[in-house]
Amino acid sequence: MELSSTNNPQVKFWQKLKLKKYRDEEKLFLVEDEHLVNEALKKGIVKEIITITHEKFQEPTYYVNEKIMKLLSSQVTGAKIIAVCHMLDEKEILGNVIVLDRLQDPGNLGTIIRSAVAFNFDSIILSDDSVDLYNPKVIRSSEGMIFHINVIRTNITTFLNNLSNEYTKITTSVIDGEDIKNIKFNKCALIIGNEGEGVSKKVATLCEKKAYIKMNKNCESLNAGVSASILMYEVNHG
Amino acid sequence: MELSSTNNPQVKFWQKLKLKKYRDEEKLFLVEDEHLVNEALKKGIVKEIITITHEKFQEPTYYVNEKIMKLLSSQVTGAKIIAVCHMLDEKEILGNVIVLDRLQDPGNLGTIIRSAVAFNFDSIILSDDSVDLYNPKVIRSSEGMIFHINVIRTNITTFLNNLSNEYTKITTSVIDGEDIKNIKFNKCALIIGNEGEGVSKKVATLCEKKAYIKMNKNCESLNAGVSASILMYEVNHG
Repeated sequence: MELSSTNNPQVKFWQKLKLKKYRDEEKLFLVEDEHLVNEALKKGIVKEIITITHEKFQEPTYYVNEKIMKLLSSQVTGAKIIAVCHMLDEKEILGNVIVLDRLQDPGNLGTIIRSAVAFNFDSIILSDDSVDLYNPKVIRSSEGMIFHINVIRTNITTFLNNLSNEYTKITTSVIDGEDIKNIKFNKCALIIGNEGEGVSKKVATLCEKKAYIKMNKNCESLNAGVSASILMYEVNHG
Repeated sequence: MELSSTNNPQVKFWQKLKLKKYRDEEKLFLVEDEHLVNEALKKGIVKEIITITHEKFQEPTYYVNEKIMKLLSSQVTGAKIIAVCHMLDEKEILGNVIVLDRLQDPGNLGTIIRSAVAFNFDSIILSDDSVDLYNPKVIRSSEGMIFHINVIRTNITTFLNNLSNEYTKITTSVIDGEDIKNIKFNKCALIIGNEGEGVSKKVATLCEKKAYIKMNKNCESLNAGVSASILMYEVNHG
């Protein structure tokens, strides 16, 4: 189908999906650029394709002009292709999980998703006041790894309270933590805090262990994506 | 001194420092926000202060209005204080160094600066076609650590060719690298490549060793800031 007017109701509908509120209402989100759209197609979550190219796709395809594309894309330069996707299902957790307490930066979340897949973590538990999983910057910085891991958005206090006792709950501390290599566990739930404030006190009290990453005293803390990645790297190699 | 017009030549001069070209010409750069301005003051590189507050500072201080501040700040919301700073001196290298080959993302550079300080690296060697060290996003994401490490911007091929043979030059490879823990060296130069393309062939041929970070095959690569940080973490703990 060809669409040429930016006032078309279908275009208006897609445009709304740039906002979290409407994504949550419609249970849909947008994925931009060929590489990521291909990952979404492989995952089988694509509802329809929007493109300025003349290629054919199995899914319903809407052929639009550059003006419409720029309206829908999160990138200044626009995109060639966008897939409208159904939100990912939340699955039961099985292995090691990383719990993110009020993470705010979309780039950090994308980076953590990428590292979690790399280091064989089973699931990411995102606090309900964290950045939106379907923020375009999260999807882009995850480099498609968002389609390879289970992500659950929930109240993390409730989650941690109900977590099976197979799991050791580990938070981070720059003051009195122990080396992650020395912490023994069957399965772990690693808790990473907000970029500025760290893990909230309420959440920290639910944890059995504190891990630290040894560093020069001139440096107060690492980037949240980096410290999460180093801890997951150590857990995977332990 | 009080300034109220956005057309004031002094304001125009500062505004130009938002561009790399003029920063390089004037050997000056801007540092925003109290925490980072304090770090710059401690470092002794502040030429003058620009502020919308009424505080007194040792350095010449220009009191401006919010309109001028918004013009000078890189942040949408503006800043309360900006320091005009002399560029940092490049010092001789002593210990382990990390070499960045065409790194493009300012957030990644800031993150790597932060991790380099944390893991006791001596210097960062930035290829002359990498993102500018004095980009406001680099300074902000370094969390002030930019003032705690030696950074040299240069032609990295020449740098690596002239490097003392005390140094083992290590690049990264996801295919045929060896575990960084098994690589023996006196001092190391770790080479990290561009976000999309990795290390250039020309630079890779200058390296004696290839290191890899073991990861799940679903994940092609890690974020550049994360892989640099994990390698520096391992070198520091080795």
